[in-house]
Amino acid sequence: MTKNTRRTQRGEPALTRASIIDASIALLDTTGEAGLTFRALATTLATGAGAIYFHVANKDDLVNAACDAIVARAMETTVTTAPPQERLRAIGLGLFDTIDAHPWVGAELARAPGTMPMVRILEGIGQQVQALDVAQQALWAATATLFSYIVGVAGQNAANARIGQARALDRATFLDAMATQWTRLDPAAFPFVRSAASQLRDHDDRADFVAGLDLILDGIAAQRLR
Amino acid sequence: MTKNTRRTQRGEPALTRASIIDASIALLDTTGEAGLTFRALATTLATGAGAIYFHVANKDDLVNAACDAIVARAMETTVTTAPPQERLRAIGLGLFDTIDAHPWVGAELARAPGTMPMVRILEGIGQQVQALDVAQQALWAATATLFSYIVGVAGQNAANARIGQARALDRATFLDAMATQWTRLDPAAFPFVRSAASQLRDHDDRADFVAGLDLILDGIAAQRLR
Repeated sequence: MTKNTRRTQRGEPALTRASIIDASIALLDTTGEAGLTFRALATTLATGAGAIYFHVANKDDLVNAACDAIVARAMETTVTTAPPQERLRAIGLGLFDTIDAHPWVGAELARAPGTMPMVRILEGIGQQVQALDVAQQALWAATATLFSYIVGVAGQNAANARIGQARALDRATFLDAMATQWTRLDPAAFPFVRSAASQLRDHDDRADFVAGLDLILDGIAAQRLR
Repeated sequence: MTKNTRRTQRGEPALTRASIIDASIALLDTTGEAGLTFRALATTLATGAGAIYFHVANKDDLVNAACDAIVARAMETTVTTAPPQERLRAIGLGLFDTIDAHPWVGAELARAPGTMPMVRILEGIGQQVQALDVAQQALWAATATLFSYIVGVAGQNAANARIGQARALDRATFLDAMATQWTRLDPAAFPFVRSAASQLRDHDDRADFVAGLDLILDGIAAQRLR
């Protein structure tokens, strides 16, 4: 990412906004939001906190810029020549996997509505919904629904993984304990959830995510035919 | 909610788990999660923190129980005799309005997956999806999609209101500033988002939410016909 390869007189690469963002992404991935401090960044980049403040306004600005860099890469890699429905599935899956790999990206998308990372995703989705020949007055709602579903479910999936980590539980152990609780529910009051306990134990979050995405795409197709 | 009306010798109502939960809901509504402390509760209930610990294990237990009480009320009020599609819309709108009124409920649903508040919602949705004659192997995915969409969008809507409050911005001012930024985007790179700026300014979050819910319900109906 760092295009600026000028070096200082002491031989270190010159400090750029891009190099600061790259170092921030690495810190966010390894230590989470709490580990991203100007002190830790200064150590990583062998510079002073003051030099970093010359390029970024504050921590909020930095997390948003780091999120935007990750989202921009995810949206670029999903550009293909497939039909719009397939491209929307690819955008959805690309973002699901990206947010799974960088859980803080999901949290930042929820925290900073309307900023550049959201704009990029809305643009990518909106262009494909337009290509589906959705009526003008239904375009915004269809795009907003896909955006909310994709970013919401991907963000919750990543958050669940962190909840498990915080309790030192692997996914299978966590789901098994939950499913066991579900089987003990009152059968008269909770017949559906009791019967779903075994599916909770075995379910694949990514497969469920795609199934939901397909329901929305089928709904868009059905409304278009009316 | 407090059924126990026994009084102590000093004349105060006896402390019960239900009265603690009611007082917690009032504190969460007025001061948010940060304002819910055992000390504040003890003051409200004219008792000691130790007496409260006799009824609840810790703050996590208390927030979850408070969330469950609110969700239980929301799910009860949506029990009607309408057809399943209408009942699912009523469940969705009921939860949207409930989480709008109690934003901490949205945060707790995201933080404690699989616990009783989620169980109640899944049960209510799952029973209606079953009544739609969805094939057995599609039942879980359709229910999970509706749950994720409803709780995710309602939670984000409530969180957005809090983001605005924290920045002392009313919704219209916030959306107007954002829309102005969108109109300044590069027209070659962001044609869709630029064209959506005016819709961002005027959009109704609750109407968008219902439009998305209807897309999913239409998708379920379309898949059932195959």
